[in-house]
Amino acid sequence: MRIPEHIGIIPDGNRRWAESKGMSKEKGYMIGTGPGLELFKLCQQSGVKELTYYGFTVDNTKRPAEQRKAFSGACIHAVEMLSKEDADLLVIGNSDSPMFPEELLPYTIRKTFGTGGMKVNFLVNYGWEWDLNYLKMAKNTKKNINDYIKSKDISRVDLIIRWGGRRRLSGFLPVQSIYSDFYVIDDYWPDFKPEHFWNALEWYDHQDITLGG
Amino acid sequence: MRIPEHIGIIPDGNRRWAESKGMSKEKGYMIGTGPGLELFKLCQQSGVKELTYYGFTVDNTKRPAEQRKAFSGACIHAVEMLSKEDADLLVIGNSDSPMFPEELLPYTIRKTFGTGGMKVNFLVNYGWEWDLNYLKMAKNTKKNINDYIKSKDISRVDLIIRWGGRRRLSGFLPVQSIYSDFYVIDDYWPDFKPEHFWNALEWYDHQDITLGG
Repeated sequence: MRIPEHIGIIPDGNRRWAESKGMSKEKGYMIGTGPGLELFKLCQQSGVKELTYYGFTVDNTKRPAEQRKAFSGACIHAVEMLSKEDADLLVIGNSDSPMFPEELLPYTIRKTFGTGGMKVNFLVNYGWEWDLNYLKMAKNTKKNINDYIKSKDISRVDLIIRWGGRRRLSGFLPVQSIYSDFYVIDDYWPDFKPEHFWNALEWYDHQDITLGG
Repeated sequence: MRIPEHIGIIPDGNRRWAESKGMSKEKGYMIGTGPGLELFKLCQQSGVKELTYYGFTVDNTKRPAEQRKAFSGACIHAVEMLSKEDADLLVIGNSDSPMFPEELLPYTIRKTFGTGGMKVNFLVNYGWEWDLNYLKMAKNTKKNINDYIKSKDISRVDLIIRWGGRRRLSGFLPVQSIYSDFYVIDDYWPDFKPEHFWNALEWYDHQDITLGG
């Protein structure tokens, strides 16, 4: 089986999951951290080389304060759990903003945890405009865009898996997603099952990769 | 029904269609121009305000010469057909390159044909890097990215419809596609049927539009 080198994860549907269980919306986020770790381990076992989680975005911070606190808290917990694994971990997003949790500042330079291995990127207070805005500071106008974006340490994404049924990228790494194959799972993220991942890999194995050619 | 203001069209599967009919690959492109006009009329009737066709890309020009000639010819024919309709038409792409068909140079400034009405954008020798590279020339570093890309005359896309079963954007207007809903039709583009379009509109009507919020 052809394994994607880099998988992007859009763990959507936390609020809808909470509502479907009769809970208030913000209760869904922390529940999603368990599946996040489970997925990390599946990727590790499968030989995936890089994994990027869509934590939260600049757009998301316009939500009510109790939701903002809840998804920030869930991201902090998720990153702390990942730092106990073998991974080359990087948290990336606009850390100059007060919306960036200060607990995650130590992770904004890539570091090896445990014995390292898989590159793991966690987008926190990430904004596509924030990312692309760095292009305006490029002195060199040669063709390569990837070298001049803020997220240049993140490689091209081969497969994006989105939970929660929505078929949109919602600002997820626009440059790295140019040629990505996009697999959508209708279940909400807190209802993650290993089959979701296996089904996505199985589907990806049948895609003809052309990189636009 | 909530009608998308701007629809993007990725008319993929022309070569696979030709092969499935026992023809050589390049024969599929010209066949796709009829469906293109049919779709234009459906959009016009439905009150769509802007329509963007993915003609061909800089990536595509690496294909064999007979394919390149065939898709260039199909784009020329499609644009000439559209210029006989009521539309505000613009052809956009890297027109400094020899890959840009000179027959389409007169269309690289938006012009009203007939009584005008719907904005129609046709991407010809378009490249996502070519588009974003203009950001490097921005003198002003304020937040708005959309004003500094080459395709700034093209608005945010609400709904992207792709034929041919592939679930990827393949470089289609990365900035305008940030929040787009993405609908994939398994049939090849030359097998276009009006139901495809109605099904996409029906699906779009049920999406919850959040623009990342």
